[in-house]
Amino acid sequence: MTLPATVLNSLPADCWPAEQAPYLQEWRGLFSAVADAVACPQSTEQVAVLMQACHAAHVAVVPQGGNTSLVGGSVPYTRDVAAKLHRPDFDANAYQGVIVLNLQNLNKVRELDADNFTMSVDAGVVLADVQAAAKGVNRYFPLSVASENQCQIGGNLASNCGGINVLRYGNTRDLVLGLEAVTADGRILNQMTALRKNNMGYSLTDLLVGSEGTLAVITGAVLKLFPRPLHNVTVLLALQSSEDSVSILAQAREMLGDQISGCELMSKMSYDFAMQHGEACKSPFRKSAPWYLLLEFRGFEASLPGQVRAFVDLVSNHFELKAVVALKPDESAALWHIRKSIPAAQSQAGASIKHDVSVPVSKVPELLRRGAEAATNLMPSIRPCPFGHLGDGNLHFNLSQPEDMSREEFLAEWQTFNRLIHDVVAELGGSVAAEHGVGQMKVGELERYADPTALQLMASVKKAFDPLNILNPGKLLGL
Amino acid sequence: MTLPATVLNSLPADCWPAEQAPYLQEWRGLFSAVADAVACPQSTEQVAVLMQACHAAHVAVVPQGGNTSLVGGSVPYTRDVAAKLHRPDFDANAYQGVIVLNLQNLNKVRELDADNFTMSVDAGVVLADVQAAAKGVNRYFPLSVASENQCQIGGNLASNCGGINVLRYGNTRDLVLGLEAVTADGRILNQMTALRKNNMGYSLTDLLVGSEGTLAVITGAVLKLFPRPLHNVTVLLALQSSEDSVSILAQAREMLGDQISGCELMSKMSYDFAMQHGEACKSPFRKSAPWYLLLEFRGFEASLPGQVRAFVDLVSNHFELKAVVALKPDESAALWHIRKSIPAAQSQAGASIKHDVSVPVSKVPELLRRGAEAATNLMPSIRPCPFGHLGDGNLHFNLSQPEDMSREEFLAEWQTFNRLIHDVVAELGGSVAAEHGVGQMKVGELERYADPTALQLMASVKKAFDPLNILNPGKLLGL
Repeated sequence: MTLPATVLNSLPADCWPAEQAPYLQEWRGLFSAVADAVACPQSTEQVAVLMQACHAAHVAVVPQGGNTSLVGGSVPYTRDVAAKLHRPDFDANAYQGVIVLNLQNLNKVRELDADNFTMSVDAGVVLADVQAAAKGVNRYFPLSVASENQCQIGGNLASNCGGINVLRYGNTRDLVLGLEAVTADGRILNQMTALRKNNMGYSLTDLLVGSEGTLAVITGAVLKLFPRPLHNVTVLLALQSSEDSVSILAQAREMLGDQISGCELMSKMSYDFAMQHGEACKSPFRKSAPWYLLLEFRGFEASLPGQVRAFVDLVSNHFELKAVVALKPDESAALWHIRKSIPAAQSQAGASIKHDVSVPVSKVPELLRRGAEAATNLMPSIRPCPFGHLGDGNLHFNLSQPEDMSREEFLAEWQTFNRLIHDVVAELGGSVAAEHGVGQMKVGELERYADPTALQLMASVKKAFDPLNILNPGKLLGL
Repeated sequence: MTLPATVLNSLPADCWPAEQAPYLQEWRGLFSAVADAVACPQSTEQVAVLMQACHAAHVAVVPQGGNTSLVGGSVPYTRDVAAKLHRPDFDANAYQGVIVLNLQNLNKVRELDADNFTMSVDAGVVLADVQAAAKGVNRYFPLSVASENQCQIGGNLASNCGGINVLRYGNTRDLVLGLEAVTADGRILNQMTALRKNNMGYSLTDLLVGSEGTLAVITGAVLKLFPRPLHNVTVLLALQSSEDSVSILAQAREMLGDQISGCELMSKMSYDFAMQHGEACKSPFRKSAPWYLLLEFRGFEASLPGQVRAFVDLVSNHFELKAVVALKPDESAALWHIRKSIPAAQSQAGASIKHDVSVPVSKVPELLRRGAEAATNLMPSIRPCPFGHLGDGNLHFNLSQPEDMSREEFLAEWQTFNRLIHDVVAELGGSVAAEHGVGQMKVGELERYADPTALQLMASVKKAFDPLNILNPGKLLGL
């Protein structure tokens, strides 16, 4: 399809890159995508002009940051994908074209205010650059995820990104004070307030965060910064049961409060995969254990190591466990390296059916038990490989293929196992889209598990913001 | 007006209290109100049935908690008030009646989950009871405001209440994980998730928090709990300039991080009022100073007092200041008593024109200087009496009447001084509705100072949630 001339002419020629492949290839190759063009505007005003043209011509727009979505949120939804995902009702032909709107050229740090502990940025600034800019003024921006060298803060905002510091600092929504965005019909919404108390009406900022590009195009944000912790201690525990991990986390919070910033649980399977396939992974324990718990402490008191040791002594007396306490940066990095090696190591161990779910922290052991039981009941030689962020109840309840099965045969059961695990999650009051969002992958899951009244209200919000349904069609609500 | 029988019969007779006055008297007496009835349903289901009846009969509904709003948010908007506030377009006669829907009978703590650090409550639970229930399981709920023995958590949520711990713990929106609410047409929205990561669609919870009863009736919530701090230290500083207070706060955060939970600034005028009129207020300083800064530190390390002393020594060397460090509970309480005595003491010193505003923390000194200049330029003998939450940039920029002027003559200038101070706040990128909300008092201010695109989008959200406009009409957006 050729785009209407009004759309093509709305931006200078150099905003339309000739090579589109990098913007259309979803990084894990799960979703194929096509678009009529890729637009890379260079200012918020250009985004507004482009949106006005697309709105007038009924051209669909897929906002895109670093294109690191794990649920197909940042590439267009094609007819093929719709069919594959059993959504034949989605009709891309209703539009006079589809463009990808990439924000990479909006890449300036607009303002750093160290005394206010805030930073104003364009949406296209890469997350690692946000972290570095904060560090440059002796401040800390705590959002941290595996893709931080590629993902953009606008995408983090659109997906309400989680990561490894949520226990202490919250999700991306908790880290933003204000937003700038362009509406579906090309108006600029200015909510760029650097205020910690502001009740001038409904919080459009909180509504747009996590809306996955379906309500408006985020073009800028005011981010919260924090004091840089002065001391840190990392602890790895080898545990006999996942129940113990919940009690130990509560004990850590009671004794050390906010000084615990991260808490990662690893099943033996995931830990062993890291040891077998991870580069330079070395277990500090001589014997293996059913579960491993990685705790990160950060604080401002020189006495932190002493208090962490007191905590470790206490839980060592109460639970059957082995402990390693890392005080030096390289020791700490070696422990975190194990945890960070798991996703790639698991891939090397064969195909994996993945789940990004959350339950109340107190229900994590039940999820682990029931989830593994359900999976092995259906396929006895399946290898459950759960790991993730115990601190916020968000587990990547991944299932590795049986050693005696082909990759394809196993992956054909993706939907079946999703249903199995997600049903358990729902029974425990959990979420089937915890930190990766809904995108195009989980539209059906949202329909199945979300409160019907919530879905109706969300649809009415979508209609209020985007009555022509041109923003990221087919995603999230599937509209 | 007599209410339609369908509305009256929708609830049992004992849900309609005969004596309506307590529900219609706004506690400061600023807003007179009338209603056709007061309804006190006893369950979420009864709220839903009532809303269905009101929706069908076009009866306006004013949701009410503890009725402690400072902006007239919790009592009906009358034609008289509309005229007084220059909003003659508001027509109460468009409705077949107006009821106050008080949530006080929904007063159960539904669930305490200490391991998940969460608590599920009905909307009508009094804030102090929420705090006490958390304490009962060795957890901490940090929301704390002057009216905590009367206000209800539902009202705190509806107004996104602030208070004295926002620096460390955030506003009410930051303290809630999920909500239950009844829509304008009587559907029950169930978002009672006790999850720290959940991206199943738009965050209706964050949208409803701070919507002041105009989008839905909040009937329940899941609240975040925190570890109980084990140690605390209170510091009072006597300072030469408000600029110093900003630098000192930044220094405190750099050295002590999250261990600083509160930071209150008091002008000499406000401090002196407390000394003159406050009960048992005693200054620990022999000489008076232009500014006073109250800092609260809470932490988990026994070394906290030592580190606070190190901080006080450092800033004492850099700034011309006097300091008092309180380690014992009664010493700490005496210092906080000064701050807490200010509002009442200021009332005893004469009439006061009040402002609940916020600016970036770094801009607070400029607001203080320009605000005082503007006020005294217009009325040389006016007595600016600013005080408030420096930690989050939220000042109560109050103006006490000249000693040689009548109360009435001074209060007649309320709107004039509001405009003066609010214009300065707006120029500094601030908010004219920081922690008390908009209610009926600041509808015109919102229209004047909010981003026009934001107002249009908010109106479209209101229409999506409440197309018949029966929920808290005339409030917030003034619709």
